Amino acid sequence: MFDILLSNMDETENPLYLQIYNQFRERILTGDIQSNTRLPSVRALQLQLNISKTPIETAYQMLVAEGFVYSKPQSGFYVINMDEYESRQQNKQPDYFLNTPTPDELSVKKKYIIDFDPSAVDNEFFPIRTWKKMLHHVLENYSNRIGEYGDMKGEHFLRKTIANYLRNSRRVNCSPEQIIIGSGISYSITILTRLIEGIRYVAFEEPGFEPVREQFLQNGYEIIPIEVSNNSFGIKKLEESGAQMIYVTPSHQFPTGRVMPYTEREYLLHWANKHNAYIIEDDYDGEFRYLGKPIPSLQSIDHQGRVIYIGTFSKAFTPALRMNYMVLPMRLLKKLESIHHFLSCPSRVEQWAMHAFIEQGHWYRHIRRMRNKYRKKHFTLMECIQTHFANKVEITGHSAGLHLQITVKTRLHEKELLKLAADKGVRVYDFQKMRINKTQSSYPSIYLGFAGIREADLEKGIQLLKEAWSHSFIE
Amino acid sequence: MFDILLSNMDETENPLYLQIYNQFRERILTGDIQSNTRLPSVRALQLQLNISKTPIETAYQMLVAEGFVYSKPQSGFYVINMDEYESRQQNKQPDYFLNTPTPDELSVKKKYIIDFDPSAVDNEFFPIRTWKKMLHHVLENYSNRIGEYGDMKGEHFLRKTIANYLRNSRRVNCSPEQIIIGSGISYSITILTRLIEGIRYVAFEEPGFEPVREQFLQNGYEIIPIEVSNNSFGIKKLEESGAQMIYVTPSHQFPTGRVMPYTEREYLLHWANKHNAYIIEDDYDGEFRYLGKPIPSLQSIDHQGRVIYIGTFSKAFTPALRMNYMVLPMRLLKKLESIHHFLSCPSRVEQWAMHAFIEQGHWYRHIRRMRNKYRKKHFTLMECIQTHFANKVEITGHSAGLHLQITVKTRLHEKELLKLAADKGVRVYDFQKMRINKTQSSYPSIYLGFAGIREADLEKGIQLLKEAWSHSFIE
Repeated sequence: MFDILLSNMDETENPLYLQIYNQFRERILTGDIQSNTRLPSVRALQLQLNISKTPIETAYQMLVAEGFVYSKPQSGFYVINMDEYESRQQNKQPDYFLNTPTPDELSVKKKYIIDFDPSAVDNEFFPIRTWKKMLHHVLENYSNRIGEYGDMKGEHFLRKTIANYLRNSRRVNCSPEQIIIGSGISYSITILTRLIEGIRYVAFEEPGFEPVREQFLQNGYEIIPIEVSNNSFGIKKLEESGAQMIYVTPSHQFPTGRVMPYTEREYLLHWANKHNAYIIEDDYDGEFRYLGKPIPSLQSIDHQGRVIYIGTFSKAFTPALRMNYMVLPMRLLKKLESIHHFLSCPSRVEQWAMHAFIEQGHWYRHIRRMRNKYRKKHFTLMECIQTHFANKVEITGHSAGLHLQITVKTRLHEKELLKLAADKGVRVYDFQKMRINKTQSSYPSIYLGFAGIREADLEKGIQLLKEAWSHSFIE
Repeated sequence: MFDILLSNMDETENPLYLQIYNQFRERILTGDIQSNTRLPSVRALQLQLNISKTPIETAYQMLVAEGFVYSKPQSGFYVINMDEYESRQQNKQPDYFLNTPTPDELSVKKKYIIDFDPSAVDNEFFPIRTWKKMLHHVLENYSNRIGEYGDMKGEHFLRKTIANYLRNSRRVNCSPEQIIIGSGISYSITILTRLIEGIRYVAFEEPGFEPVREQFLQNGYEIIPIEVSNNSFGIKKLEESGAQMIYVTPSHQFPTGRVMPYTEREYLLHWANKHNAYIIEDDYDGEFRYLGKPIPSLQSIDHQGRVIYIGTFSKAFTPALRMNYMVLPMRLLKKLESIHHFLSCPSRVEQWAMHAFIEQGHWYRHIRRMRNKYRKKHFTLMECIQTHFANKVEITGHSAGLHLQITVKTRLHEKELLKLAADKGVRVYDFQKMRINKTQSSYPSIYLGFAGIREADLEKGIQLLKEAWSHSFIE
């Protein structure tokens, strides 16, 4: 006999048929009632429980409908074979996901020997021990705050620390209130598009950082591409464009690697003031500069609150934290309260840890260390390219940042170069995806990120590229 | 004499006037050039540097414009008093932020003795040591992945673990591909509104969870409030509404605490199938149930892919991690790739730690433990209310979750009750904010969260409430 317990306590919430259904279902799932067991007849259960037939019949029909039980005519209700049921459940994976893996899954599947991934950073010198210490410290000391939601704009003391850091290192002028801590540039742009109103045309570097451009496009903005090359920037086009906002990467243009000259910076600010426009300054790798002194941010010379400055911990520290920040001009702060439902800061625990990391001086030490490491990788890569390619490639965009650009003297197209490299197990990156208007310039350009590659592997990567491409060089 | 070094190396990037400006500015800021020092005259510097006057004059004018230097007629340029400058900088806080603090800032400033905050959770029993161990473990073992961006939908193995957990505990049917890990409900709703198209009317529980409602409103949706009380749900209105989506909290309605009966769940699914509509099931505290067995999720009885299930680690674990998840029906997955620029997962390090935490069985132990703790707090609170208020209040919505509702037999309004409570140092919460149509029911209703309050403080809180309100009771 089956031991079914009915409670009348909360019958509206748990009607009898549901109680019966639940208890059978649970016991079938746990194996308590075994496969192919015959369930008690409706009549037998009715007598046992002293209730009407209806709830029992309903429960049995639900079990049948959900595939736990089948009915044999003139015999009764039987539990299905649960082994089969479970394997059926496991096969319920969506087919199209198995068949069309995402780019992410692809990059994992296709193992490159060397991947000049511009988004990767060094993992060898990540300060694991210190970071563990910080986490340890904040979990011990701030645990009394762990039960509460914090400020969705970010923890105030971290915003204060970041404001100080930005003032010292990038000359950014801001108070902690202007800083919104987020989980990456896509979050920052989402918040920003909520704050700015009445803007339709956004000027964008061409080539430029495609993910942000896509976000603007999908938000219904029209993109006005402003051509950027190693020695020019389409100022005239911008002036005539009617754009009310522009997205730029002045410290190290993505992907060309160009550093925006001071006169252009001044011009941009002048343009923004004249048109009441905004400038989004994405300073994604402004910490790293190899030739000359670090150039202060565009924000630092803006006196009219036209620049929205965005920085990240993903390059100088690790992208695995998913932590960045945006500095809003004062005029945009007022609206912030009205959109606070959209705010969603990253982990408070890691914000506390980051605060401690910076306050205790580890951040500055880490940046100095990484600057040296990346400078070494950078010069090693430059040297390898010069040794192996000599005058067959031109290197540009190499005075700062974590990637550089090479223009290859070949009759091949970008796509062909990528394919030949991939055949040798090397992944390099193509400008075309970063352009909204696909064009073909005289020689193809490729860009190489070096931060995520061990120094010893850089030469191997370049050697393989040479093997892949050398037959196509133009004399 | 001032030691100014000029470089001709990259003059386009660093024109002379900027080099001069920067060096003075830096040395003034660091205190290297002291307050009230007279700067060298333009002529003297010109001779020293052997350049034309213009860049020097420009640099000086910039320093004046930025307030580092003042000019005394017929005397020269002087550094300002830097102590004053710094205190001025510190006072540059935006006034309106100081004057109109956010609710967050208020709750910190106004120190309540007891705050029945429904969003707070217990911090006394957070498993600090185990969590530290997990973080330690993953930082040691996964550090080779720390230099890379992960899958913005969330780490695959955590999504697999969550799928298993949801299947076991909430009967949710899903594969890992359907899970999107996020940083909170506002993120999930942002992503969701990108995925669903052609929807204009969203039905919403009234009273309901205001932050989500606000998000829909600000996204341009029209909200159709569906009245919910302790014993009813406006089915008829929903049927006539033309809504194509509904947001519900069936396990424990926010804020009334009602548990949606099974028949209504079936009705909702029926409605969604009939109208090709979606149901957002926000199962924010589904882990905690005190009367009867946990009720399976609405998603578990949906066979047509109509339910979007949203769960969180904020209630059962901690809101400080900012980690939640959304289970999408298969039909919405296809579009996911096209909006991938909007995805931004929470910290990968903490995702790894959460995976380890669940896999090693800590999660289940923690949930069991918290269930007991909260059950105890819950019954203590119930007992205190019954002891002190007897028949002057009615308790509802108390069969599950981390808050309950009391209706007070008084002639006062909600706002007056809140005020009287605050005067005694107790913070309680009002339904009105959760309503889109403000109405006044016969007796005022208040809700009390108990998760974040120590058990010993619950009685004190209720005692103070009685002192605050007892003079207003209706006999």
